[in-house]
Amino acid sequence: MTNVNPESAGADVFDRFYGVIPAGGVGTRLWPLSRAAAPKFLHDLTGSGSTLIRATYDRLAPLSDDRVMVVTGLLHRSAVLAQLPEIQQENLVLENEPKDSAAAIGLAAAILYQRDPSIIMGSFAADQVITPVEVFQETVREAIHTAAQGYIVTIGIHPTHPSTGFGYIKAGEPLEIEGAPSAHAVVEFVEKPSEDTARGYLRSGNYSWNAGMFVAPVALMLKHLLENEPELHAGLMEIAEAWDTENRREVVLRVWPTLPKTAIDYAVAEPAAAAGDVAMIPGIFSWDDVGDFAAIGRLNPAAENSELTVMGDGARVYSEDASGIVVSDTKRVIALIGIEDVVIVDTPDALLVTTKDHAQEVKKAVEHLKASGDTDVL
Amino acid sequence: MTNVNPESAGADVFDRFYGVIPAGGVGTRLWPLSRAAAPKFLHDLTGSGSTLIRATYDRLAPLSDDRVMVVTGLLHRSAVLAQLPEIQQENLVLENEPKDSAAAIGLAAAILYQRDPSIIMGSFAADQVITPVEVFQETVREAIHTAAQGYIVTIGIHPTHPSTGFGYIKAGEPLEIEGAPSAHAVVEFVEKPSEDTARGYLRSGNYSWNAGMFVAPVALMLKHLLENEPELHAGLMEIAEAWDTENRREVVLRVWPTLPKTAIDYAVAEPAAAAGDVAMIPGIFSWDDVGDFAAIGRLNPAAENSELTVMGDGARVYSEDASGIVVSDTKRVIALIGIEDVVIVDTPDALLVTTKDHAQEVKKAVEHLKASGDTDVL
Repeated sequence: MTNVNPESAGADVFDRFYGVIPAGGVGTRLWPLSRAAAPKFLHDLTGSGSTLIRATYDRLAPLSDDRVMVVTGLLHRSAVLAQLPEIQQENLVLENEPKDSAAAIGLAAAILYQRDPSIIMGSFAADQVITPVEVFQETVREAIHTAAQGYIVTIGIHPTHPSTGFGYIKAGEPLEIEGAPSAHAVVEFVEKPSEDTARGYLRSGNYSWNAGMFVAPVALMLKHLLENEPELHAGLMEIAEAWDTENRREVVLRVWPTLPKTAIDYAVAEPAAAAGDVAMIPGIFSWDDVGDFAAIGRLNPAAENSELTVMGDGARVYSEDASGIVVSDTKRVIALIGIEDVVIVDTPDALLVTTKDHAQEVKKAVEHLKASGDTDVL
Repeated sequence: MTNVNPESAGADVFDRFYGVIPAGGVGTRLWPLSRAAAPKFLHDLTGSGSTLIRATYDRLAPLSDDRVMVVTGLLHRSAVLAQLPEIQQENLVLENEPKDSAAAIGLAAAILYQRDPSIIMGSFAADQVITPVEVFQETVREAIHTAAQGYIVTIGIHPTHPSTGFGYIKAGEPLEIEGAPSAHAVVEFVEKPSEDTARGYLRSGNYSWNAGMFVAPVALMLKHLLENEPELHAGLMEIAEAWDTENRREVVLRVWPTLPKTAIDYAVAEPAAAAGDVAMIPGIFSWDDVGDFAAIGRLNPAAENSELTVMGDGARVYSEDASGIVVSDTKRVIALIGIEDVVIVDTPDALLVTTKDHAQEVKKAVEHLKASGDTDVL
């Protein structure tokens, strides 16, 4: 661990906690429901009545006494404000153009550092589904205590199957941290594995899924960013210094387009792990990144006496011997007859028909449509 | 045979020929493409560029020197005129309300009889697909020669499989009629059989499908109608007498609603067969009544290198490992991934997703929607 503002565990560490919600990512595998103009985080994909970003805010805000910063695309400004009317203007960070996660999360860290170098940030993507909320919050409290001891703390998701779609976190020895009984050192982050490797990870018991959640002192984040991406660090610091001043617009417009694009994993997490600065709290809550329409089926169980999950206000679905998922984003009548495990997503300008087994391949369709110039529906 | 205006075969029998096209029937199994406001006969279901009613007219008009009468619903007046601009006003018979085939075809017979009692009518439904046209026309010529000898002549379709969806015609001895070498007597009409019975019919070689096509002297049609449905006959004759006068509207509005509803099979064809007045010409052309979406697949073969049949102007379909039929009546992008033998019919207010094997069950969906009050899309 690196000694950046370490202190003993205590209630006051929570006063230094600030929630950050990076809200990017279209959710291509959820096309045509999710798309550039209406990305995944703006949808209620669980039938809970809340969009994913609203649910993310509601999980996080009680931990930070409503101090929450959102980083999103300029295009989504009004939609995000409609979802989170309580967000203060200076805490809504709008990207003129996407610059990948290191710039997005790094800018949040730099702005917060500028306001108060002792802040501990907790970054949680806007498009994940987590229950129960109380277990999540208890996990984050442990992470905050651990971060206060000078760690970048990730939350490791207990793997339920040998997924080849996620990166993994290899845990090391337990850490002895007051208020964080389940904290472990992190040996390394590993990229998405082959299925055989993933099976080995599950057997070993030392690996958990990397859901991109972390809690860390902003000063420690920036220290590693400076070491690994000095150009990015310099640009972000320049923007951050201007952020709460009248120069914000000028500096952002000038500097942001010049920033290198890279992932926070390469810019901070992996080198920090190699330096022994990363800890992990196991997340024993239920977690889903709603990666495809099969997930929608899991998260919205079919009504009793039916094998068909129907999502959408005012959906008009008639089914006979049909099972699967229907997402209705229109008022059209949808009739399904004699078709199993089907996935139907009905939107005003695009229709997807596939099966649960092929849900991951939706991304390919989107790539094809992009290549063929059918960008009006993407 | 009954002696109604018999005469020897000769070119002049064709001068007495009048085509009649009953254009009724929504084509429920083709919902949501076919529906009350846009029934089957108004669609181009073969990708030929012609609607079914236009193709029916084009097959028939050369035989009758353009003397063609169309019987359809009042609702379809302008659509039918748009398809058949050459139809004369007095030959477009509009039903205020549907009264089944005996009234529709009987009215055509009565109006034509009023104009000239020696007319031979040939009635062919507006929603069947027949190729090649020349073989059809040669068959009808034989039927006209046979009708001129005092027969109601049906055209029997050679059965290609033991269908339980059609009625059958049992042929008797060959008739010796000049100009009609393949004419046979008809023993009886039989209703839709069980599959076992249908197999027996196919084995016997004496049965053909009843496609509801017939050619007959109007006087003979009316004679049997008078015997079997005197009330219907009286009403139709009253309308027919007023048809080409200024009283048409008054009489139609008064009499039509009072007419009994029955099928031409019961009112004329079956009793006429029992009386020995029915003959049959085998139709050796290819015939399809486009009974469901599986037929659309047969009639619109998939493009080479593809197992997916796509119908619809400007359809925007992306497919990956998909086979079946897509009927696109919108400009929406339709993406199909990993789904086989699917049937997708995409219209502005209703979407059908089923499989070829379940194509016949579409009717059930329509009945359900009717029962549940979703009549806006029917």
